[in-house]
Amino acid sequence: MDGLKPDPGAHRVVIVGGGFGGLHAARRLGQRGYAVTLIDKRNFQLFQPLLYQVATGSLAPGDIAIPTRSLLRRYPSVRVLQATAYDLDAGQRKLRHEHGELDYDSLIVATGVKHNYFGKDGWRAHAPGLKTVEHALEMRRRIFNAFELAELSTDPAERAALMSFVVVGAGPTGVELAGAIGELAHKTLVRDFRAIDPRQTRVLLLEGASRVLPVYPEPLSAAARRHLEQLGVTVLTGALVQAIDADGVRYQQAGVVTELRARTVLWAAGVRASLFGEVLAERTGVAVDRSGRLQVGADCSLPGHPEIFVIGDLARLADAAGRDVPGLAPAAIQQGEYVAGVIAARHAGKAARPFRYRDRGSMAVIGMNKAVGDLRHVRVTGLVGWWLWAFVHLMSLVDGAQRLRVFVQWGWKYCTRRTGDRLITGQPTDSRRLRGERLAAG
Amino acid sequence: MDGLKPDPGAHRVVIVGGGFGGLHAARRLGQRGYAVTLIDKRNFQLFQPLLYQVATGSLAPGDIAIPTRSLLRRYPSVRVLQATAYDLDAGQRKLRHEHGELDYDSLIVATGVKHNYFGKDGWRAHAPGLKTVEHALEMRRRIFNAFELAELSTDPAERAALMSFVVVGAGPTGVELAGAIGELAHKTLVRDFRAIDPRQTRVLLLEGASRVLPVYPEPLSAAARRHLEQLGVTVLTGALVQAIDADGVRYQQAGVVTELRARTVLWAAGVRASLFGEVLAERTGVAVDRSGRLQVGADCSLPGHPEIFVIGDLARLADAAGRDVPGLAPAAIQQGEYVAGVIAARHAGKAARPFRYRDRGSMAVIGMNKAVGDLRHVRVTGLVGWWLWAFVHLMSLVDGAQRLRVFVQWGWKYCTRRTGDRLITGQPTDSRRLRGERLAAG
Repeated sequence: MDGLKPDPGAHRVVIVGGGFGGLHAARRLGQRGYAVTLIDKRNFQLFQPLLYQVATGSLAPGDIAIPTRSLLRRYPSVRVLQATAYDLDAGQRKLRHEHGELDYDSLIVATGVKHNYFGKDGWRAHAPGLKTVEHALEMRRRIFNAFELAELSTDPAERAALMSFVVVGAGPTGVELAGAIGELAHKTLVRDFRAIDPRQTRVLLLEGASRVLPVYPEPLSAAARRHLEQLGVTVLTGALVQAIDADGVRYQQAGVVTELRARTVLWAAGVRASLFGEVLAERTGVAVDRSGRLQVGADCSLPGHPEIFVIGDLARLADAAGRDVPGLAPAAIQQGEYVAGVIAARHAGKAARPFRYRDRGSMAVIGMNKAVGDLRHVRVTGLVGWWLWAFVHLMSLVDGAQRLRVFVQWGWKYCTRRTGDRLITGQPTDSRRLRGERLAAG
Repeated sequence: MDGLKPDPGAHRVVIVGGGFGGLHAARRLGQRGYAVTLIDKRNFQLFQPLLYQVATGSLAPGDIAIPTRSLLRRYPSVRVLQATAYDLDAGQRKLRHEHGELDYDSLIVATGVKHNYFGKDGWRAHAPGLKTVEHALEMRRRIFNAFELAELSTDPAERAALMSFVVVGAGPTGVELAGAIGELAHKTLVRDFRAIDPRQTRVLLLEGASRVLPVYPEPLSAAARRHLEQLGVTVLTGALVQAIDADGVRYQQAGVVTELRARTVLWAAGVRASLFGEVLAERTGVAVDRSGRLQVGADCSLPGHPEIFVIGDLARLADAAGRDVPGLAPAAIQQGEYVAGVIAARHAGKAARPFRYRDRGSMAVIGMNKAVGDLRHVRVTGLVGWWLWAFVHLMSLVDGAQRLRVFVQWGWKYCTRRTGDRLITGQPTDSRRLRGERLAAG
């Protein structure tokens, strides 16, 4: 270092993706004065663990999202660009985005995952997933429109299909979605209709493994299943989906094939690397796993490219303790902060210790008042689980105003059993078009 | 009546449109036990006077909208259908909607107005208006995207065009929109960018008449103009728009024609009858005014069709005191309640008194802390005006939870000068498409 203090402002860090990992890396680097550019195609940070509540009408999108610029405004060396990154030149250290190029000394890629339909891309149109605000609003549109159309229908078979909901995949998202729909049908909407009884709604949760929440300990799976059944959800484990179309699903369970007519099918079954992750693997030749996640080294950098880090659920890593780091928000936050430390350590000429994931446990919520949690020292279910879940989520919402809004929404919901944001948005049927159709038909 | 008590449940009332007028008619009729069907293409009631705050990122759509079903759930004789009505047979007393027909004994039409581009329908794509949630989100997308693109741009002329905003029309909506954009630029966003200074934003408010808020008393217009200018808004009165395209606007003022490059142009200049209003006029032969509003009788019914009522801003009516009833929420509410009373009076064999509009005054808000109000006995401006405005609006939000949410949002904004919901939604640029484009171009 020749007695010169390293100048962090001369080290250009580009971060692709402003989710939990990218945002926390930017904060730590901004605190240290690094010249950071965070690039994201969206202008907000999304609290994805609560997205299912947007889909089921409890929260508004704005309740769980904050402008990335606001979150980083206090760090003058951090610049935020809203643009889609689509390529990189790993040799020249250039990132390409829709409006130009960015040179970097260090690159942090945190672009996450998208849905995986396991090669059945035709299913996508009939079974939307839940990764973005638009996905959540599309799910909401389908769920509430199904009840509206059932109220209008006079054909019992059609009505039954409209009042049948299938959730594919019983990980935390699938369990939470199915529980929230069960609660809508059996509690929130009970008095809202005249021609239908929402309590006759069927909610089916299909899971290929032998139990719900397969990565949780067995007793919590059993508790989750019990809670779901109390909300009127039918849980089918060991069930493999064979086909999904506009009419419903076909699945196989214990050798028996069943066709179920259901107008609303929701997908919570699998993820794979984001597009930018694919490009990165192609450009660097780094190994990927079956889901396209990039195999990173002990310091979260790519083999052969120590200046490129991959963090969050796009990275595949067995940490210093030998455990696979899970694709969860706390892991992404820890990796973001860790990588900021690695960059600073290198800059100071020091070696960085390998990444070590601190597992604080995981939880899933099933309707009002029911949750299951697998914490480090204790397992909780039922009401205690729910309160703990609510507390943990509220505390981890990034911003004070957001906490207050979600608190108001939940408090209100808790007291009144009415949900907070059930707007169906998107253009409704145009009457001019209807007139044209009917006139032409007549 | 031959000693028989009239049975309200046997009198079928169909209400088209669930805005202020339709909703209040349904409530009053539901209280009396009438068999009401309210049909609306949307599933929610929208508090339109605050829509500009959704467009400028202060409120979420769910903050100012409530499911119509929830609002009417306590009236068992009221049924809500989500469907688009497109025609009627006035002789057979049948309403046609996208899923079937409804027979009625009384029909209440409250489908409101849409934008009027005065024959220049090509302007619509370049200057969106503000009547629906989708409009508000589109405006929001344009406003915040313009700042994002300005931050990315390196061309000074392009940057200036991106940071120029034009609002056409200085009625309450135009004044409130321009004030809110001025406030965004000069207060809320000041610290959020690195390459641009949001305080250099130009906000232009164009009005054809000789003053802003032309229907308000003169001193309030002057106060509103002063408040707007304090927020950096340039007010041009006597200015006539000649052209609007993707590059900006051309307008004439005092014989001088000016072309202004502006990437964001917003329309708040005029309204005309909704499509269903046009159909109704065609089917009944009732006279319409220049905006397509239907001329109704003293009891809000159509000449020649006493069983059909038109209320809200779709109706044209000089009331019992000889004044034109304005197209405002309080007038629609009063008409909805009045018409419910007319139906009940007829049913009891009594005559109804003509409709009389009770004018409680009107207000407009210009940014934080500034509003002008023309109440019956007092005119207010500045801070007093703002507090009164906030109180009046909060009190008239239909639902307790909504009041609480808006209160939280405003309170937070007031304390921190940060806005509540600045999400840009809709699909961002797809990186696969970008790669395809660049690869093909290379």
